[in-house]
Amino acid sequence: MSKQTVKVGLFGLGTVGGGVAELLLQEEKRLQEALGAELVLAKACDLDASLASGLGLPKERFTTNAADILHDPEIDIVVELIGGTKVAKDIVMGALNAGKPVVTANKALLATFGAEVFGLASQKSLKIAFEASVGGGIPLIRSMREGLAANRITSCLGILNGTCNYILSRMSAEGADFDAVLKEAQTLGYAEADPTFDIEGMDTAHKLAILATLATGRFPQVKDIAVEGISGISAQDITFARETGFVIKLLAVFHRHGEHAELRVHPALVDRNHLLASVNGPFNAVFVSGDWVGDIMLYGAGAGRRATASAVVADILDLAREKVNGCRFTAPNLGRAALNLSPLELTPIAQVSGRYYFRFTAKDQPGVLATIAAILGKQGISIETVLQKGRQETGGAVPIIILTHEASEQAMQNALKEIDAQPVITEPTKVIRVV
Amino acid sequence: MSKQTVKVGLFGLGTVGGGVAELLLQEEKRLQEALGAELVLAKACDLDASLASGLGLPKERFTTNAADILHDPEIDIVVELIGGTKVAKDIVMGALNAGKPVVTANKALLATFGAEVFGLASQKSLKIAFEASVGGGIPLIRSMREGLAANRITSCLGILNGTCNYILSRMSAEGADFDAVLKEAQTLGYAEADPTFDIEGMDTAHKLAILATLATGRFPQVKDIAVEGISGISAQDITFARETGFVIKLLAVFHRHGEHAELRVHPALVDRNHLLASVNGPFNAVFVSGDWVGDIMLYGAGAGRRATASAVVADILDLAREKVNGCRFTAPNLGRAALNLSPLELTPIAQVSGRYYFRFTAKDQPGVLATIAAILGKQGISIETVLQKGRQETGGAVPIIILTHEASEQAMQNALKEIDAQPVITEPTKVIRVV
Repeated sequence: MSKQTVKVGLFGLGTVGGGVAELLLQEEKRLQEALGAELVLAKACDLDASLASGLGLPKERFTTNAADILHDPEIDIVVELIGGTKVAKDIVMGALNAGKPVVTANKALLATFGAEVFGLASQKSLKIAFEASVGGGIPLIRSMREGLAANRITSCLGILNGTCNYILSRMSAEGADFDAVLKEAQTLGYAEADPTFDIEGMDTAHKLAILATLATGRFPQVKDIAVEGISGISAQDITFARETGFVIKLLAVFHRHGEHAELRVHPALVDRNHLLASVNGPFNAVFVSGDWVGDIMLYGAGAGRRATASAVVADILDLAREKVNGCRFTAPNLGRAALNLSPLELTPIAQVSGRYYFRFTAKDQPGVLATIAAILGKQGISIETVLQKGRQETGGAVPIIILTHEASEQAMQNALKEIDAQPVITEPTKVIRVV
Repeated sequence: MSKQTVKVGLFGLGTVGGGVAELLLQEEKRLQEALGAELVLAKACDLDASLASGLGLPKERFTTNAADILHDPEIDIVVELIGGTKVAKDIVMGALNAGKPVVTANKALLATFGAEVFGLASQKSLKIAFEASVGGGIPLIRSMREGLAANRITSCLGILNGTCNYILSRMSAEGADFDAVLKEAQTLGYAEADPTFDIEGMDTAHKLAILATLATGRFPQVKDIAVEGISGISAQDITFARETGFVIKLLAVFHRHGEHAELRVHPALVDRNHLLASVNGPFNAVFVSGDWVGDIMLYGAGAGRRATASAVVADILDLAREKVNGCRFTAPNLGRAALNLSPLELTPIAQVSGRYYFRFTAKDQPGVLATIAAILGKQGISIETVLQKGRQETGGAVPIIILTHEASEQAMQNALKEIDAQPVITEPTKVIRVV
């Protein structure tokens, strides 16, 4: 039988795009064996032509003009790996409008314009595959969309940002402070020159929005997600957490409450016996609970050239199979036959309840603990553990650590406000949620 | 548009089959939303009619005659959950011969008759889905087949038997002996009345054979896999392992060596910082390495009614989509377009090298350690750690623990033979491999 050919048009030859180009060029034979057809990188587009020559891509397979891919009737699949939500959106929408299925790793685009992008794909009966948008090389998206298809997903807890997990792991291993470890992470390439987007939790929030869309079939507003980053975590917090049996991780949290969902991103105390507590370094992991499967966890490299290319090319193969087999839309983009474009309504974080870690900084004088305990009691917050350390060097202020039993976020906020207004409290109190 | 209907014929209403029937009956609406068509349990077959009534399955949807499903032209998908390799094989081959795609959880069948079963499925261009055959509810098979499709899988390390992992975890947590924990596991339903198949490693070997087939596209002979169970592990071994920084797990090991593969099942010392060391209780986990993705790990319930049903119904949905979308064979059964029926050649375990834990039991007299060390040295085995404990109560025999550096299995076997022949050695030496 004569071999079919599937032609890929690739946007972006940066870290991930370059890795995808390498994989397609180097593993031609393996991919052909998997597909039963030739898979060809027909054309790549980037503003920087030097990237193409660095990859050994022939001149005629490179362009700086998007239309050369989008309007080429021979291109079967468009791969968008330029990132951002402006040009990337034009490319993705342009490809769909031209009748081409799309592979993208663009979490910001899908989290922000998910309804629009999936809406157009559905209208055109085209596939949009996005395995690499969350968890890098981990086969997470297809596991949730297909592997857990019989389940109602009730919760997800994710370590979704390698930069943050690397920093927290190093702080934990070395007792080092945030700033020192961040600087080291930047030197080693684990953190960007401007790390704000990662360390303040926005990258994690985008990925959480995508997981929530997969879990519910609806679209949350990213701006409504409660987000707190890791820059306020001190070496002290990590030490105190360890002494009470916990490690600190930046977590993405999804809990379903009927038709609503609780979505939040924040540092969290994780029990040291929980499997997520053992996920260290730049790795990612997601703990998913379904009503039939129970708990599963998927772990792997959440970023990086080769791991992310692995996920992108898995998606390309999926889409290529649709051409080879002559059928479209094997599994629906979000695992449901019909698309529901209504927004996912979020439970306000004030209505959520949980356990809390408080680090109070107070004058070292009698009655302080009584004052704090009385205010917590008034808000109905009961104390599980108190850890009070001896006098510090710095001006007689002492840290008091309190771990609470379950209480509402509102009660916690009320107590926090009242406690921080006490004259004996010398610094704003640090609160970390316990999961 | 008028709704299509996909009809399922189910063999076996035991633990897993009953769970699948429940899922199909209880989650009808959810499955219809996923599929965009009705998914109906049209007929179930079991020798025990009381199982059907217990599930509330109407009488007309139950039969004790296999032909009522296999020869019903209205049945679209056959699900085989009776286990074993005799009747189950007839059913699977019969379904394929009747042109029906098959879902099965039958690891013994696929491990033993894989070439025959996949060969017939390929010849008939039919899908055979087997997510539940390894790792219960964990979406492992589709992750390897599709999610890692761009990779050459270089190794897998798996905790694949919940009974063994439960027993080893309890022994580790409580310092209890094997026999006591096994008895408890039987009472709690974590171990069978005859636990031989689980605790002697055969169940794990079947699952390993399936993973090796997915990783290489070829078929190992199960009888050639080196298999050792956990019944020889003592509370002492677990304690000594902990003191040297390890935990003991029953592992399935796959390593690729060019076109050959190393396949073995045995208790192993796992570094306590490895993620697999934190997998406790009846859970399963598989650590997979690919040349692009790096290391990933998948974790979850490896058995149980609901978790396994989740995996089986995910497969049913996949196959049902092929009918709904009007196309066959979306992803090939083993991830490769062409089936290679040649056997997977195994590297003999004598050629494998690794590190070893030895527990010698010797008379408490001068010169014993020198004797052992000399024999190890003669075989080129160098010692990493020695742990010698004080005199024991039982007749003056003392345990001597030695952890070695990397050495060949052959050298280890030679040394073992010579050491056990020494008059100062009072009991056969226990060897555990280190991974």
